[in-house]
Amino acid sequence: MIPITDPRIEMYMMRMAPEPDPRVAAMEDKARETGLPIVDRLVGRFLYILTRMKQPKLIVELGSGFGYSAYWFARALSIRSKVVLTDYSQENLAYARKIFGETGLIDRAEFRAGEALRIATGNVAEEGTKDKETEAILRFNDFMFSHEEFFTSIVPLRDGVLLAYKFN
Amino acid sequence: MIPITDPRIEMYMMRMAPEPDPRVAAMEDKARETGLPIVDRLVGRFLYILTRMKQPKLIVELGSGFGYSAYWFARALSIRSKVVLTDYSQENLAYARKIFGETGLIDRAEFRAGEALRIATGNVAEEGTKDKETEAILRFNDFMFSHEEFFTSIVPLRDGVLLAYKFN
Repeated sequence: MIPITDPRIEMYMMRMAPEPDPRVAAMEDKARETGLPIVDRLVGRFLYILTRMKQPKLIVELGSGFGYSAYWFARALSIRSKVVLTDYSQENLAYARKIFGETGLIDRAEFRAGEALRIATGNVAEEGTKDKETEAILRFNDFMFSHEEFFTSIVPLRDGVLLAYKFN
Repeated sequence: MIPITDPRIEMYMMRMAPEPDPRVAAMEDKARETGLPIVDRLVGRFLYILTRMKQPKLIVELGSGFGYSAYWFARALSIRSKVVLTDYSQENLAYARKIFGETGLIDRAEFRAGEALRIATGNVAEEGTKDKETEAILRFNDFMFSHEEFFTSIVPLRDGVLLAYKFN
């Protein structure tokens, strides 16, 4: 598997971005211990900046896990905006609710249990035959880049972040 | 030197983002032929999305070269907004003016000749002794990450894009 961000670059960036909020570190520890996937801090910070820039009224997250990325969204949202967390696991949502409850951010969050999308993992840039999950990601990327309603970019942070702007 | 984006990932992303505007390809060719630095297409597309999201009234670019990134900014700006291109080279600005002039985008651009910042290149994530330019970049990054007025992220696209949100 190609590491999308060179480990030395990732280390440099992680050193640059110390995080004073103990909840962020706690969630990162939880991810490491349980193996539950999170976007991790570098992507979290990136999502934070995008959210501050755009100031959306509503963010709907499909598959929030235990709330790591939603926490970054919520920190960047104005008090009149909202992030909706969805996850199939009540346990994940309960954890997220607890974390959000420890801060004022719970007013900006809504928690909904339900079947989220299954996470696919793959290596789209690697040569050779592709497994089914990689094929699915390739199809999704093809769709996003070829669809005229969207202007799409992939940011090679951590596992890769597809960013699409929808016209109108 | 560490390639910030793995070449295979960059190739995959480039294939995904064909560019119908012949001026973009012409500027990319010019950069290859002359060795003048440009941010290149993947960063251009990223800047385009950021600009569409934020819809700034004014973009001031320090060191526009012959206008490659400014062209991406201008394409994303509303008609009431403006990008100011600065460069020390009248020749660069004349080229940019010509490119912008071939489209409606010239209304959104202002061209100013003057001493821009000198471009420093270096490898901040590599171990070992650092040259003066690398030291300068390290100091700049340290400043941006430690300054409380800014929330900073580095996006590892191409040569790396430092992205900072200024509070208030």
